[in-house]
Amino acid sequence: MSFFDRYHSTRNARCNLCVGIDPTPDALAKWGLENSATGLRAFGTAILDAAAGVAAVVKPQVAYFERFGAEGYAALTDIIRDARERGFLVIADAKRGDIGSTMDAYAQGWFGSSAPMRADAVTANAYLGLGSLEPLLQRAADSGGYVFVVVRSSNPEGSSLQSLGNPPVWHHLLDDILQWSDRYDSRTVGAVVGATVPAELAQALTHLPDALFLAPGIGSQGASRDDLAGINGLDRVLVSASRSIGEKGPEVAALRQAMIGAKAA
Amino acid sequence: MSFFDRYHSTRNARCNLCVGIDPTPDALAKWGLENSATGLRAFGTAILDAAAGVAAVVKPQVAYFERFGAEGYAALTDIIRDARERGFLVIADAKRGDIGSTMDAYAQGWFGSSAPMRADAVTANAYLGLGSLEPLLQRAADSGGYVFVVVRSSNPEGSSLQSLGNPPVWHHLLDDILQWSDRYDSRTVGAVVGATVPAELAQALTHLPDALFLAPGIGSQGASRDDLAGINGLDRVLVSASRSIGEKGPEVAALRQAMIGAKAA
Repeated sequence: MSFFDRYHSTRNARCNLCVGIDPTPDALAKWGLENSATGLRAFGTAILDAAAGVAAVVKPQVAYFERFGAEGYAALTDIIRDARERGFLVIADAKRGDIGSTMDAYAQGWFGSSAPMRADAVTANAYLGLGSLEPLLQRAADSGGYVFVVVRSSNPEGSSLQSLGNPPVWHHLLDDILQWSDRYDSRTVGAVVGATVPAELAQALTHLPDALFLAPGIGSQGASRDDLAGINGLDRVLVSASRSIGEKGPEVAALRQAMIGAKAA
Repeated sequence: MSFFDRYHSTRNARCNLCVGIDPTPDALAKWGLENSATGLRAFGTAILDAAAGVAAVVKPQVAYFERFGAEGYAALTDIIRDARERGFLVIADAKRGDIGSTMDAYAQGWFGSSAPMRADAVTANAYLGLGSLEPLLQRAADSGGYVFVVVRSSNPEGSSLQSLGNPPVWHHLLDDILQWSDRYDSRTVGAVVGATVPAELAQALTHLPDALFLAPGIGSQGASRDDLAGINGLDRVLVSASRSIGEKGPEVAALRQAMIGAKAA
């Protein structure tokens, strides 16, 4: 079953939590774990233990694994496999973006049965044009995967580029996503829009009526669920929380409580 | 010595070649190499053997390694180390882009003495705002590294986003780069502008009078050196050729001939 269909089978009207797996140096130190690939594995396992039964979707942040090179990728590979075996949907937060056969090479890393870090969804960057992501979208469509394209990011400095022009850059990107969805497949591509910019999130949900959204920024980046109250289409929004959960570890019970809190907050 | 200084010590007025290390499935097949991490290593070694004495800079395309996961990163790590030990400047073509401590985690993977894939320069993506790359720029500045920010890409579909607005997005990005350089360090950040858009490359060179440029697109993407003739500031442009060299392998002599050809073409 595809990411899109599995997401819809578990979603609820108000609150869909995506639990981030962000083994930052700070979190590892606080948990008493080594700042190493070994620490990454222990961190990931604890997050999965805590998320079982609480969240359907987890999102490892690839950067925290890449900083350890090959060993980090080995840890990431194991964590993703473990998560999928436990029945989680896994979004690899990789924000990859390139062109042509290079983009296709990235896609081979994450989508399809022979992908080493096979995930259910990835995040992607379209500065090189949505068309540049075509090989990724194609492999996602072929393997039941999903691509969240960064449209409006959760950081303040993101608007300096994304809001240029009238209509702004991010509206154009929504148009391009809509066009691709209408033409090829409406169950393969959605968007990342920060929970920190709820008005834009509401607009984007209207603009792309079938797409799924990933909304980071709840908790440590300053957004709360209250900011999203009243938005239509929250059943299509995966609200991701990472730092605000991780800082409650290392005890699994405390992590689980933080996840339940993130759903209710 | 920093990337910037070493580049300037080897540059010439007309032609600075950056040899791509792009082990595509097609190239590996043509060379009779396994499409595996073992194949990647053999490919990388042959390119380095051929580039010795011909080019000062090499550029592994990270995507072709990432497709093999941890094993691919192990191969990439070895190739980068080998290249640096042989005296090449290494640009990791990673096009990473994220925010805050996530961006810093990527930076830790590539810059500084404890980075597993320590490179001399990386490519980066600023869709999340040039400000989002601050941790990467900072680590580059601290370790003598260099960051090439994708400004105007070599692919036709790139202009759909980069040319939006008036002035266009890519001009704004040049302004942001100039501002950062003026404020902090003029020897740390430059731009990627495709050789396929020579008029834009000429403008960008004028806009950023001290920055270095990486110009992909020569050869298989359709640009030639003739397209760049007459541009002022070519001593600051690294023209990168990958596919057009790789397809001449596997013999080292033939690869070297292709590299010499790419310099003269």
